[in-house]
Amino acid sequence: MKFEQSRALFERAVKVIPNGIYGHTSPAIVLPGASPYYASRAQGCRYWDVDGNEYIDYMCGYGPVILGYGHPEVEAAVTEQRASGDCFNHPTEHMVRLAERLVDWVDFADWAVFGKNGSDVTTWSIQVARQHTGRKKVLHIKGGYHGVDAWCTPGHGGLIEEDRSHIHAFAWNDLESFYALLEAYEQTIAAVIVTPFHHPSFADCELPQEGFLAAIQQSCHSAGIVFILDDIRGGFRIHLGGSHRLFGFQPDMICFCKAMGNGQPISAALGRESLKVAASKVFLTGSYWHNAAPMVAALKTLEILQRDSVVAHLERMGTRLRNGLEQLGEQHGIPIKSSGPPAVPFYRIANETDFKLQQQFCRSMMAAGVFFHPHHNWFLSAAHQQQDIDETLERVATVMKAL
Amino acid sequence: MKFEQSRALFERAVKVIPNGIYGHTSPAIVLPGASPYYASRAQGCRYWDVDGNEYIDYMCGYGPVILGYGHPEVEAAVTEQRASGDCFNHPTEHMVRLAERLVDWVDFADWAVFGKNGSDVTTWSIQVARQHTGRKKVLHIKGGYHGVDAWCTPGHGGLIEEDRSHIHAFAWNDLESFYALLEAYEQTIAAVIVTPFHHPSFADCELPQEGFLAAIQQSCHSAGIVFILDDIRGGFRIHLGGSHRLFGFQPDMICFCKAMGNGQPISAALGRESLKVAASKVFLTGSYWHNAAPMVAALKTLEILQRDSVVAHLERMGTRLRNGLEQLGEQHGIPIKSSGPPAVPFYRIANETDFKLQQQFCRSMMAAGVFFHPHHNWFLSAAHQQQDIDETLERVATVMKAL
Repeated sequence: MKFEQSRALFERAVKVIPNGIYGHTSPAIVLPGASPYYASRAQGCRYWDVDGNEYIDYMCGYGPVILGYGHPEVEAAVTEQRASGDCFNHPTEHMVRLAERLVDWVDFADWAVFGKNGSDVTTWSIQVARQHTGRKKVLHIKGGYHGVDAWCTPGHGGLIEEDRSHIHAFAWNDLESFYALLEAYEQTIAAVIVTPFHHPSFADCELPQEGFLAAIQQSCHSAGIVFILDDIRGGFRIHLGGSHRLFGFQPDMICFCKAMGNGQPISAALGRESLKVAASKVFLTGSYWHNAAPMVAALKTLEILQRDSVVAHLERMGTRLRNGLEQLGEQHGIPIKSSGPPAVPFYRIANETDFKLQQQFCRSMMAAGVFFHPHHNWFLSAAHQQQDIDETLERVATVMKAL
Repeated sequence: MKFEQSRALFERAVKVIPNGIYGHTSPAIVLPGASPYYASRAQGCRYWDVDGNEYIDYMCGYGPVILGYGHPEVEAAVTEQRASGDCFNHPTEHMVRLAERLVDWVDFADWAVFGKNGSDVTTWSIQVARQHTGRKKVLHIKGGYHGVDAWCTPGHGGLIEEDRSHIHAFAWNDLESFYALLEAYEQTIAAVIVTPFHHPSFADCELPQEGFLAAIQQSCHSAGIVFILDDIRGGFRIHLGGSHRLFGFQPDMICFCKAMGNGQPISAALGRESLKVAASKVFLTGSYWHNAAPMVAALKTLEILQRDSVVAHLERMGTRLRNGLEQLGEQHGIPIKSSGPPAVPFYRIANETDFKLQQQFCRSMMAAGVFFHPHHNWFLSAAHQQQDIDETLERVATVMKAL
């Protein structure tokens, strides 16, 4: 597999862009030199890099592309909207319809707002909690990802201590560490923010233990703390009404982003009626936040997710992939450790902590035309059909044989 | 003029969206009850609201739509890109080309990064300055607008004092107030951020006095402070190489957003080589930040801006509008106060401080099919032709006669 064009573009890029490619698609955090750097086109569950290499994809643009690349119905809806316009002086009726749809689907939610980035809505939610409670402190899960704003970015550069002077972390599935913070800060805690399952990079996903999130909900309720669910990673892939539905708890606010518009830029925060006044007092806006095309894309995407029972499809295809990977791993003496929901799974070679064999495995899979990310959870889409999974597993078998 | 559909949609909206419409397009900050709330389509320099009312537009989506709504060449480029894909696992070659283009155009800049919102890049720039200097403090212009992040939002809700413990404001065109802060904090100042001209809402635009921004530049240079130009409002409307070119100074970083992609969501920060290492250390990313369509739209928009000498066109059309408004104002005893560059102007009825007559004037102009914002600077586009300006002025004459 050749990466000449990727390398040539990257050489140009490093001259005019810090790091050449930054953020979550940085080659430095995938497999430098052994993975494509630039995409050229995509269709369904496959994409092509700038060297013409084809991949069966298991990242879906790091989540957004839940129906598959270039989904004809979403594309048609966007094209139709763009013929009328996209960025106006006012919102369009689609904003109202989208808010109505989401409020209808999410059991506890009475209102919605929209942004572009996930960070837009996670950070705004915390401000709403501060406005509502008149308190400052925010508790979150250690190693959880809520975006790149100063209070939560996984990066270290450019931060000052004041950015996090009221941000405190407790451990996933560790109620004692949560209660310790609660005891220390109870009357000053504005918000607790969690993901529905723990999905750090370079580590296994962890589902919530029975009662973990419900106990947090109970404590928040008792102490007047706003309980925020960051459902950006899992949202719409494991339950259409919010991932809390699967894990037996209810937050006060929920944040969505990826998978809302099949790749069109949009995010959302939803909340309870009791928070609506506070929400109305925290200013939020952006030059393109009312753009119509992403809202139309979201309406169409949600419609198709429901009509085509995509959550069940992702579960089926994800389980087929998981079973296949685990079986092949056993057969070839390369045991696979699976974690997370089948639709948003994390896979690694078991019994190693340094990801060395994992990286070698993913490097070989890329060379075999399958994009397996070595360090980040994967994402499935409605475009992944049984034959795509089976074709993937055939290539896995070949790679494992050679390893 | 009827707003029945606008009102009906808004009644639905307030049930499921805090404030119904939030942010810069909120009816509460335009003319509640007398302006449209929802758009349905737009073409060139005109748009239609959901009641079918037509407007000659002077807001351009609050800036982004610099070539006019539905510009055929930009739309065609976006459509072509979308046929290949938009949101991928990797950037596309267009990201490299766009960085190269911007670095070529902006005299002092050696690198570029891209975001979605203006706030994404203003906030990130400050973090880069903090990383580069190891200092905390940021000086900005009192009443200046740099987005909605906690350090700078014009809103009050949800903030805590730590958000601004190192943010200090000095007055526009008042070097003494700048020097006072410099003296008080010099060794701890990371960044000074300014707009190229002062464009508060509910007040006249103010151009920089001779030497004001050059003196700030000089002080920053001497004290090792990073000088950031927020060119989001004016960028590409008054000079293609950054608005500093018009005002005789040079910053160390510049932020663009509006007008980059003719409405497609994209923003950018550019900087000097000396800041590239710091820039590479401040993590930035978002789910849709590498999307190809906005980058293609930006490349095409910039190409057309240059090819069609749009800056000169905006200056001509803006000046024609200004002269016409001033003359008509004199004729009808309703003197107009003009301020700001003709392409990004602020107009109000002179000799009043409460905007009462101004609101009445703009209300009547909306009823006459011209969207004049009473409290915010306006934006011109390449689609505004002489006959549109003249048609606008005819309607102004009629309205002024009736006032």
